[in-house]
Amino acid sequence: MVVSLEKNKQHEVVIIGGGFGGLYAAKSLANRNVKVTLIDKRNFHLFQPLLYQVATGTLSPADISSPLRAVLRKSKNTKVLLGEVNNIDPKTQKVFVGDKIVPYDTLIVATGANHSYFGKDNWKDLAPGLKTVEDAIEMRRRIFSAFEAAENETDSEKRRALLTFVIVGGGPTGVELAGAIAELAYKTLQEDFRNIDTSEAKILLLQGGDRILPHISPELSQSATESLQKLGVMVQTQTRVTNIENDVVTFKQGDKVQQVSAKTVLWAAGVEASGMAKVLADRTGVECDRSGRVVVEPDLTVKGYKNIFVIGDLANFSHQTGKPLPSVAPVAKQQGEYVAGLILLRLHGHTLPPFHYTDVGSLAMIGQNLAVVDLGFLKLTGFIAWVFWLVIHIYFLIEFDTKMVVVIQWAWNYITRNRRSRLITGKEAFLGPQPINNSHPYQATETVKQPVKV
Amino acid sequence: MVVSLEKNKQHEVVIIGGGFGGLYAAKSLANRNVKVTLIDKRNFHLFQPLLYQVATGTLSPADISSPLRAVLRKSKNTKVLLGEVNNIDPKTQKVFVGDKIVPYDTLIVATGANHSYFGKDNWKDLAPGLKTVEDAIEMRRRIFSAFEAAENETDSEKRRALLTFVIVGGGPTGVELAGAIAELAYKTLQEDFRNIDTSEAKILLLQGGDRILPHISPELSQSATESLQKLGVMVQTQTRVTNIENDVVTFKQGDKVQQVSAKTVLWAAGVEASGMAKVLADRTGVECDRSGRVVVEPDLTVKGYKNIFVIGDLANFSHQTGKPLPSVAPVAKQQGEYVAGLILLRLHGHTLPPFHYTDVGSLAMIGQNLAVVDLGFLKLTGFIAWVFWLVIHIYFLIEFDTKMVVVIQWAWNYITRNRRSRLITGKEAFLGPQPINNSHPYQATETVKQPVKV
Repeated sequence: MVVSLEKNKQHEVVIIGGGFGGLYAAKSLANRNVKVTLIDKRNFHLFQPLLYQVATGTLSPADISSPLRAVLRKSKNTKVLLGEVNNIDPKTQKVFVGDKIVPYDTLIVATGANHSYFGKDNWKDLAPGLKTVEDAIEMRRRIFSAFEAAENETDSEKRRALLTFVIVGGGPTGVELAGAIAELAYKTLQEDFRNIDTSEAKILLLQGGDRILPHISPELSQSATESLQKLGVMVQTQTRVTNIENDVVTFKQGDKVQQVSAKTVLWAAGVEASGMAKVLADRTGVECDRSGRVVVEPDLTVKGYKNIFVIGDLANFSHQTGKPLPSVAPVAKQQGEYVAGLILLRLHGHTLPPFHYTDVGSLAMIGQNLAVVDLGFLKLTGFIAWVFWLVIHIYFLIEFDTKMVVVIQWAWNYITRNRRSRLITGKEAFLGPQPINNSHPYQATETVKQPVKV
Repeated sequence: MVVSLEKNKQHEVVIIGGGFGGLYAAKSLANRNVKVTLIDKRNFHLFQPLLYQVATGTLSPADISSPLRAVLRKSKNTKVLLGEVNNIDPKTQKVFVGDKIVPYDTLIVATGANHSYFGKDNWKDLAPGLKTVEDAIEMRRRIFSAFEAAENETDSEKRRALLTFVIVGGGPTGVELAGAIAELAYKTLQEDFRNIDTSEAKILLLQGGDRILPHISPELSQSATESLQKLGVMVQTQTRVTNIENDVVTFKQGDKVQQVSAKTVLWAAGVEASGMAKVLADRTGVECDRSGRVVVEPDLTVKGYKNIFVIGDLANFSHQTGKPLPSVAPVAKQQGEYVAGLILLRLHGHTLPPFHYTDVGSLAMIGQNLAVVDLGFLKLTGFIAWVFWLVIHIYFLIEFDTKMVVVIQWAWNYITRNRRSRLITGKEAFLGPQPINNSHPYQATETVKQPVKV
């Protein structure tokens, strides 16, 4: 467990996970005096904040993905290893990847989070979440198939259920999904169908807490609610989903129990730490919080293991504000950079003060010309916030890979108010529109499974 | 079977298939004095000639797809029906789509072709073909997974098999696939791996006939062969694959039997007419050729049925040259336009002379700055042919939908020599690289199944 400082052996850093945390750590270690191995199950980094635009037909998966090997091409000290980590051994400092054993001097674990259905695991098939490319394609299939099926449906009640979209969770993803579906139904698709009026679609955004976007200021949250309502979204706060069954969503608002028939239910509510947290807990005895996140030390290490770091959505870092830092990309990015810096300093016997997150503000897109931006000292809404949102996202996107194409697509969508990427694809795409109550369960067991088998 | 000319009833045209033939027919009938229903299993038109660019990581599926409803949005007389045709009844003039019955006055059948494995249907899983978006994503997964697995493989023989790519079929698709994979291995991916040298990859293009690209002139075919060889592709003509088993491809060149260990085998050889041909044969007694195509009359109708047209890859039209017209987009396009014109003229008691195909020439992309173009009066190779290829494809792409994005991607790929869309996705993407000889059969039964169940 001692950090290797032997003269002739280069220090080996192993990073598990190529998300924001892992990739920024790798970038910060590029071509420095360490050997780096980045392990991921996927061959690309995914820009998750824009995944909802894939799910709603604006962008293609490749538009928001960067091949890890391409990003790290010039990092000659870095190997990318595609594989699934089965286990780690902190005693002998080894990571087990398939049938391979990868030794490390320092380990960075950044495997992120998955959906959580709060114990109702059968909801997974009924209300898919949005974490992977496959999730987004499945959501896209469901959304556009619902409109297609409604076009073919003669029973008005069934048609209403097909045109009802329930989004569970009022965080950024839920808000962005609701806004995007409202724009689809009330604008983009308006002239595309002959039998149905897509503007009859009903879009419900259900939020457990007092207000949507709880991470931004109450005024902005109120402004976002009003913008969504103007777009046609029904926003219900203090609302908990109690059941999803037979295309009916049951929810409780205070004591009032309500039901709505909806063919499409999308999950943007809970997340839980990926399976690596459990592995770490088993192997190091480290504490995990209620969401399964690893409670880390002020320098992001695992208690008792100075050479194991946990960063990003997998970490619970509460030393700064007393509460865990939010599960957002900027936290992961800053933690990745901090850890890389600390590792390099340690090679020369130095260290760093505890990690400190610099809050860069929060923002959420609602629709065309509509967003909310909370920078603390500055709060923006409407068009100016929307422009700000675009600029920030373009800035982040082009850091790894010049995503000119995304900029062009956005510009083009803006001008034409169309969405080019609304393909119904995947294994069930050939079945055509699905009749209501005829279950086509979402076989997502493979795509949303825990990334680590222990 | 009589063409309806009743005064108060609008003539109903039903088109099955939204490929080039069906879509150009629908476009030509847009907002004319007929009712049109376009039936397709998919909600988008696919620009198949560029599918190989999805399979090799240059473009995204949405880049070469146009949502049918968006293309036909302004055709107010046209309905799009998403569904699978089960049967037709020429007597009562009805098409059966799922549980729906769609009556027609005139029927246009344009359901195209599928892969054919010449009776060796078990090769389907071993050597996937390229007809659908799902096919392309599966090819992409196999190609990039092979490089990943090679990077992890320590056994040199297995690594060699992982870096061997066999493309069966020397038509445009086979040539374009071979050229694109050569560019991947010998250029794009060169710096991306640490353990393997991707330039050791072996790419074999196997062609049954005397020369590749048999539809163009022998000199151009020779030039294409030389260009491919310069890129590093081994071109074997007069070569027939006799077996594919356990990652070994057996092929016969004259009397010489050879074997090559290859993890990735791609099928670009045979096609056969889609299942609608059989339905038509059963229902109308029309003759089908050896590839299952419907032998059509000089006006593209089915013998004895003046109101049933068969166009595109589904049709065998031999009245012009004595041989069937080639299965290419321009034939389908011209036939769609011809049939639409004939239907409109018939409404006024007029008719048209037999269909006549205006040959617009043939072309195939080989690689960056390399293509062959045969316009009959003009033959181009190299850079000038490549520019010509680009201009023609951009022209066709923007006819339905402004595919500015494709132009930008191409330009960007050209400058950076990178490929942005090399994602390994789909149901097996999470399994990481596949060990050799550990079969992960391609479950393609759904995606390449016959579109029509009779």
